[in-house]
Amino acid sequence: MKDFPEKHVWHTYRISYGDTDAMGILYYANYLQLFERMRSEIIRASGVSYAEVEKRGVYLPVRHAECRYRSPLRYDDLANMRGGISEWGRASVTFVYEIWNEDRTLLHATGSTQHAITTREASPMRVPAWLREIFE
Amino acid sequence: MKDFPEKHVWHTYRISYGDTDAMGILYYANYLQLFERMRSEIIRASGVSYAEVEKRGVYLPVRHAECRYRSPLRYDDLANMRGGISEWGRASVTFVYEIWNEDRTLLHATGSTQHAITTREASPMRVPAWLREIFE
Amino acid sequence: MKDFPEKHVWHTYRISYGDTDAMGILYYANYLQLFERMRSEIIRASGVSYAEVEKRGVYLPVRHAECRYRSPLRYDDLANMRGGISEWGRASVTFVYEIWNEDRTLLHATGSTQHAITTREASPMRVPAWLREIFE
Amino acid sequence: MKDFPEKHVWHTYRISYGDTDAMGILYYANYLQLFERMRSEIIRASGVSYAEVEKRGVYLPVRHAECRYRSPLRYDDLANMRGGISEWGRASVTFVYEIWNEDRTLLHATGSTQHAITTREASPMRVPAWLREIFE
Repeated sequence: MKDFPEKHVWHTYRISYGDTDAMGILYYANYLQLFERMRSEIIRASGVSYAEVEKRGVYLPVRHAECRYRSPLRYDDLANMRGGISEWGRASVTFVYEIWNEDRTLLHATGSTQHAITTREASPMRVPAWLREIFE
Repeated sequence: MKDFPEKHVWHTYRISYGDTDAMGILYYANYLQLFERMRSEIIRASGVSYAEVEKRGVYLPVRHAECRYRSPLRYDDLANMRGGISEWGRASVTFVYEIWNEDRTLLHATGSTQHAITTREASPMRVPAWLREIFE
Repeated sequence: MKDFPEKHVWHTYRISYGDTDAMGILYYANYLQLFERMRSEIIRASGVSYAEVEKRGVYLPVRHAECRYRSPLRYDDLANMRGGISEWGRASVTFVYEIWNEDRTLLHATGSTQHAITTREASPMRVPAWLREIFE
Repeated sequence: MKDFPEKHVWHTYRISYGDTDAMGILYYANYLQLFERMRSEIIRASGVSYAEVEKRGVYLPVRHAECRYRSPLRYDDLANMRGGISEWGRASVTFVYEIWNEDRTLLHATGSTQHAITTREASPMRVPAWLREIFE
């Protein structure tokens, strides 16, 4: 991905037996759980945990998610993942992800998730300045 | 199980691909999710949903769970499950479960879960009379 | 969705506690597991189970998945889902899905999955005539 | 646990959003997935991965699992887990587990899993000498 966000975070995850399916590979829905792990790491790397973001009254419900599957992961594989923010909207933010093999020679999957910025009661809100700042 | 509670509920569940693991069988942790489905059905059969029980301020956090695995389930199997309440404590309740194959000729697994009765703040409370009554 | 495939299958699914997350709603990755359940039902409705399709040496690995989240589902909700085939490629097939509430008045989510048609060894193959026929 | 096996392995795991449920805590079935992660780490620490054990024709299907829940884990908690082998049978092996908080001052859960030793075709087999040796 040529234009992967310059500012991004790498994180590893070991595929467990429970993550696989009867085809012997990482179950396709679980890629989205890996993306969610990356979001937590991206937010943690900003110096503010997602739990803290919620405490400040800001929620990031997912509006859209997509994943492109290129090559399967198997039990015990160590996934090497990177993620970052690709776009800010007025009241939304988009994350992008890549899942590589351990030595980063094979790209297993790419994906993105788009999130609304809302209050606890799910009302849309403009991106708070502090939220945007911690990622820049 | 000779002494399965006389009052019990049957419920079916179709094993999905995502429920299986690389051994090609239902992943062992997912049996506990099936038990949880049964609890919901047992409570629903009482005429009061678990959501309603929580609204009345009564919570049933799990204290102990166990499962005996006798014969694996596979993708697309239709599990035929029964569950009931085996014991009331002063501030606890125990559910038991059996997972059979579709025509109830093969027992796949048995298990039990023990739950505390608590307030929303997780303080133990005595079993409310109304809770016990709806199950009798 | 105006152009939902005329030939489609409806199926219901009860949201379990384990399907939810700390936001109190159906976890976003689990929508893809619901889509997979629908695929199984679509294939079952054709008269041939997916297990049988695999026995005939035909595999349908996912190449791309996406989901649009419109309104959250909660514990104990009964999801009313429909799914169908929207497009056949030379060596691929695309399924589309909608997740409605119990009485079909509220659309919770829409999505699609694109699958390659492959041999057991993951080599692409042209859509077998019998596979396409059973869906028409 | 006074008699936790002297030879054991520690491993950490970050609780993701998808691991939690609507009560805001780690879903009870997912403790068994954490136990499975520990088994993989115990086996890896022996110098032979579980994937390798299976390649040598030895399988360890679960026969029984149990978990005692003492204090809930929440989103973003870093679980500090230890696991070891507590007992070898003629054709079985038992693992035990503890899940602690990050600084090991609070015990969240304890549990155990008992496994048969079988061939790929699920026939019981005596514990191979090499298997026992790598754990001693």
